[in-house]
Amino acid sequence: MKKKIRVGVIGTGRIGRLHTEHLAFRIPEAAVVAVSDVVKAAAEKCAADFNVPIVAADYRVLLDSPEIDAVVICSSTDTHAQIIVEAAARGKHIFCEKPISHDLPAIDKSLEAVRRAGVKLQIGFNRRFDSNYRRVWEWVREGKLGDPHILRITSRDPSPPPIDYVRVSGGIFLDMMIHDFDMARFLIGSEVEEVYTMAAVRVDPAIGRAGDFDTAVVALKFENGVLGTIDNSRKAVFGYDQRVEVFGSKGMVQTSNNTPNTAKFSGPDVVSEDLPLNFFMERYIDSYVREMKEFIGCVSEGREPPVTGIDGRMPVLIGKAARLSYDQHRPVRVAEIAGS
Amino acid sequence: MKKKIRVGVIGTGRIGRLHTEHLAFRIPEAAVVAVSDVVKAAAEKCAADFNVPIVAADYRVLLDSPEIDAVVICSSTDTHAQIIVEAAARGKHIFCEKPISHDLPAIDKSLEAVRRAGVKLQIGFNRRFDSNYRRVWEWVREGKLGDPHILRITSRDPSPPPIDYVRVSGGIFLDMMIHDFDMARFLIGSEVEEVYTMAAVRVDPAIGRAGDFDTAVVALKFENGVLGTIDNSRKAVFGYDQRVEVFGSKGMVQTSNNTPNTAKFSGPDVVSEDLPLNFFMERYIDSYVREMKEFIGCVSEGREPPVTGIDGRMPVLIGKAARLSYDQHRPVRVAEIAGS
Amino acid sequence: MKKKIRVGVIGTGRIGRLHTEHLAFRIPEAAVVAVSDVVKAAAEKCAADFNVPIVAADYRVLLDSPEIDAVVICSSTDTHAQIIVEAAARGKHIFCEKPISHDLPAIDKSLEAVRRAGVKLQIGFNRRFDSNYRRVWEWVREGKLGDPHILRITSRDPSPPPIDYVRVSGGIFLDMMIHDFDMARFLIGSEVEEVYTMAAVRVDPAIGRAGDFDTAVVALKFENGVLGTIDNSRKAVFGYDQRVEVFGSKGMVQTSNNTPNTAKFSGPDVVSEDLPLNFFMERYIDSYVREMKEFIGCVSEGREPPVTGIDGRMPVLIGKAARLSYDQHRPVRVAEIAGS
Amino acid sequence: MKKKIRVGVIGTGRIGRLHTEHLAFRIPEAAVVAVSDVVKAAAEKCAADFNVPIVAADYRVLLDSPEIDAVVICSSTDTHAQIIVEAAARGKHIFCEKPISHDLPAIDKSLEAVRRAGVKLQIGFNRRFDSNYRRVWEWVREGKLGDPHILRITSRDPSPPPIDYVRVSGGIFLDMMIHDFDMARFLIGSEVEEVYTMAAVRVDPAIGRAGDFDTAVVALKFENGVLGTIDNSRKAVFGYDQRVEVFGSKGMVQTSNNTPNTAKFSGPDVVSEDLPLNFFMERYIDSYVREMKEFIGCVSEGREPPVTGIDGRMPVLIGKAARLSYDQHRPVRVAEIAGS
Repeated sequence: MKKKIRVGVIGTGRIGRLHTEHLAFRIPEAAVVAVSDVVKAAAEKCAADFNVPIVAADYRVLLDSPEIDAVVICSSTDTHAQIIVEAAARGKHIFCEKPISHDLPAIDKSLEAVRRAGVKLQIGFNRRFDSNYRRVWEWVREGKLGDPHILRITSRDPSPPPIDYVRVSGGIFLDMMIHDFDMARFLIGSEVEEVYTMAAVRVDPAIGRAGDFDTAVVALKFENGVLGTIDNSRKAVFGYDQRVEVFGSKGMVQTSNNTPNTAKFSGPDVVSEDLPLNFFMERYIDSYVREMKEFIGCVSEGREPPVTGIDGRMPVLIGKAARLSYDQHRPVRVAEIAGS
Repeated sequence: MKKKIRVGVIGTGRIGRLHTEHLAFRIPEAAVVAVSDVVKAAAEKCAADFNVPIVAADYRVLLDSPEIDAVVICSSTDTHAQIIVEAAARGKHIFCEKPISHDLPAIDKSLEAVRRAGVKLQIGFNRRFDSNYRRVWEWVREGKLGDPHILRITSRDPSPPPIDYVRVSGGIFLDMMIHDFDMARFLIGSEVEEVYTMAAVRVDPAIGRAGDFDTAVVALKFENGVLGTIDNSRKAVFGYDQRVEVFGSKGMVQTSNNTPNTAKFSGPDVVSEDLPLNFFMERYIDSYVREMKEFIGCVSEGREPPVTGIDGRMPVLIGKAARLSYDQHRPVRVAEIAGS
Repeated sequence: MKKKIRVGVIGTGRIGRLHTEHLAFRIPEAAVVAVSDVVKAAAEKCAADFNVPIVAADYRVLLDSPEIDAVVICSSTDTHAQIIVEAAARGKHIFCEKPISHDLPAIDKSLEAVRRAGVKLQIGFNRRFDSNYRRVWEWVREGKLGDPHILRITSRDPSPPPIDYVRVSGGIFLDMMIHDFDMARFLIGSEVEEVYTMAAVRVDPAIGRAGDFDTAVVALKFENGVLGTIDNSRKAVFGYDQRVEVFGSKGMVQTSNNTPNTAKFSGPDVVSEDLPLNFFMERYIDSYVREMKEFIGCVSEGREPPVTGIDGRMPVLIGKAARLSYDQHRPVRVAEIAGS
Repeated sequence: MKKKIRVGVIGTGRIGRLHTEHLAFRIPEAAVVAVSDVVKAAAEKCAADFNVPIVAADYRVLLDSPEIDAVVICSSTDTHAQIIVEAAARGKHIFCEKPISHDLPAIDKSLEAVRRAGVKLQIGFNRRFDSNYRRVWEWVREGKLGDPHILRITSRDPSPPPIDYVRVSGGIFLDMMIHDFDMARFLIGSEVEEVYTMAAVRVDPAIGRAGDFDTAVVALKFENGVLGTIDNSRKAVFGYDQRVEVFGSKGMVQTSNNTPNTAKFSGPDVVSEDLPLNFFMERYIDSYVREMKEFIGCVSEGREPPVTGIDGRMPVLIGKAARLSYDQHRPVRVAEIAGS
């Protein structure tokens, strides 16, 4: 049997626990040997629940351990870039939740550290591993749609996060639409050249007072000439609304939302079905397993991860461009941001 | 029995023949008493097919006839405004195919003539009478969706018109997307305030050489704060693609394409269905009957038609704004056009 | 222009008026020159509404008229067989609503009269002309499903007919399921060999007191070895439920109900759609036009109609077998009935 | 933390391994402490893969171990009844794969042993735990459909099992349709009173030569008056076809097949989707986890399992009645079998 990849998980909040569980129970090729969290009790509970031997408050304990091959960074966003730099320096392979950082120089510094250390880095854009998006991606890549012409992404949350979170989130473009910017690049296979943003506060005035938006439409032009739109809302009363459509010279592909069952009721007033799966923990659960399996496989076999540092960097640029477009009420080329 | 409304049809091309047939066979409250066409043979064939007693090459024969209560204008776009002026002056009620004109002063002059004459004027935005869009409109109006937040319209033709037509069409925004601008105003119940346009030539370079586009995405902001997108393509290989989605504070409504049958095949490779109805004559046939029934009813009962002169004017403004946005590579307020 | 087929319509109840309207307005190759009804006022109203010159109480007026090429028999079921005999004797082509009769000798006599006279006879199994069933039939015939193995037909009405009608209807098997027996033969292209019936009174005890059932399941074996089921209910609270499924060695085809629009609502509790089209006048309206167009075409061009006398006879046999199966609580071969 | 239920798995073929994996990784309330298989190497591999400490060729090792609270019986069908008797005698709680036996006296003897020992017994009708069927069951139970009138179950496999298996399988009614008989009882909440069977060899003559059928339709009458049909085929070229429909006085519920993704392609020829999930390991995987979780919960909390011995017995009776109906070409009351 092949040697298991020994993993340390840094940050044991919701997403950190999820990755720990998957690594412990669903991915036989890996073993979680350590977890850390600034709130040590959280790390301890996680360790107990998933039989993890080493627990620490300080992630440096993990980085210093020779027993660890790779780290999974699930701590708060502002710590990602620094931990990447340190982990790379210690030769650990790195899985990092998105986004790397909201600060471009910090991103660049961390990517440079990874490059120099020659370690693997995978960014947590899990939706790329979802079976719906995967099928769309395959069909685009196989040429089943011919040349893509128009992309439409819809991405709406069931309800807004707490205002305290909104304040530190980086704003709707870097916190929420960043997933869609990644998806846009992934599906079209070309970089976004220019964006134009319309945004509004329609759901909760408090979000507006926090300097953010809850409703936004972004028009996109890709380097390969494809046009696209993304729309986001912080509140879809029917649940998590995650759909994509790619229209091309030879056909179109569309996805619809996943549902908890296929039961359809025909009654005296309407025909009805259950609501879609409510939020990302139900909707994207399989994609979380698959991305982690893929990361472990890449470390194990020395392959390049499918979502690399540049994939972590570009959506941040696009997100900044999207915000600038709104602020200056004009179309913005992504290159304007890259140049900054 | 109520007296039938006596109608003259001006222009007996495809759409003129269609209206004649509906008036003759589907709308018992009306009688077609005359048809005219500059190509007199076309008018004669139409008259013979649908038992119309009076035939003329010159539409003025119809306008001068005291036997005619109302005219249906289906001649070429550049003649609409002038015929409206003349018909109004002779006290005829008017149904006019879209658009009234590409020339704003001409539109305004014709609407003024209608106003002064006190005749009824209905514009041929037939999609408002389609059962899918009608349902969406009802649900928005009833508040079933709460406050609307985001509108998405997709409208794609099965194949581009001949290049000769493209040259005189007024361009994709005034020829094709004009229907979507009307639909946007109709569904949201608010005026479009600002547009931003991305457009491209993806289908046929000849369309580009003719100074037009075949692929376009327009982002819209409405006066009531709703955001929206419209996308158009001149060529959807799977047929006529006509869908809308309205997302609001209490829910979302989506329509899908109409299909020729509901048969679904499950075979060894895929699950498949027949393509959607191919083009507007199949897809929207019922809406043509309904709009004409409604016009006849309005004339008969002295009601104001549901699609009035202002509804003919506004989409032209938006279309011009959309083109200007592309030309100047900036968001354009519709008021900029209105002011010109 | 070809000479129009001159038609007389016998019986101007709901279905007779419908055929008259279609012949008058939708089928240019035909002209309705006479209508008759035992209730003369009904015939007069029908004639006035659709511009029919000749009106009579006695259908023999139509049969005696040299101005009439074909008759459409829409009178009460008990008169069909006799009128067929008389019409055939006078050389009129015949379209007859289903069923020809509940009495087998009467059916046989009328078919013999038709044969001898050499006139065309088409039976009004309109569903064969519906676009859903048509597609299924085509796919079966083309071999797209391979060898058919299992057939499932569901056919449920929105609400039971009046008890007075139930009493004279011939019972659920001859009145309602007869359409499904026809569909079964049509889709599978083989005769039904044996049936087994389970039936119950679940909707309204008054139907049971009238000696009939409102809920029934019939298992079928075809001569070519296909197995099938039909289920009927007199009351589907969600409307008219008309679906079919054919499963074969190379695939399956299923139809679903037709809907008034494609609008889909996603709200805080459910995802919902409008109910299916409510009853046969909406659901099958196009099939009525098509069957009549086909009949006129057959008369005009001397072709054999696609739904002949034998197609009128066989479903009656199957219906009688289905009832006998229930009464004797055993499987019944259709040949047992044919032999009687 | 509550004490874990210690489980021994008897039989480590495909289904035994599956249960072992779920107990080991997905159900924290349980621990697999032993596995046995007559092919000891199989048990050893299973133990190694899922960290099970005790391995045996003889299941009696497990029954004799005081370390084991419950056994999961996944050995061949002919051993189930005997192992149940022995396990009950040793006070072990029992989860047993379906069917208990094809031999009624053996079933009765094993149920009596369970009753006397007072241990829990759950039968492996996993589909009851599938989210589609669960929803149907809930809606029936809540009265959302009113009184149920008609049940339709479709259940078709992607391809027939090997002929060697067919020979010992007990036949299509006890091997395959037994799941549907269970589902029928579960959904309708009433016992099946009478069946009538039509069956054929349509897929593979070798199945016929083995004395079995590959295509079957069974009509059912329930004690509460509901009528129903079940159809089975051993070969659906499009994959695993598992659907149900319940029609009642207040509405209808239908399920459709589960699919690997929601991507829909619209191309120049057809609109298409991927095939349904292919077979039970993909389609019903979640139901296997849920049934086992439920069993462990019942043992842990002393609750009665939701699928009891009688639920294991009744479908065997119905299956025997179904076969007898075919053999004697007549409707058969289930009570005829129960009386034997």
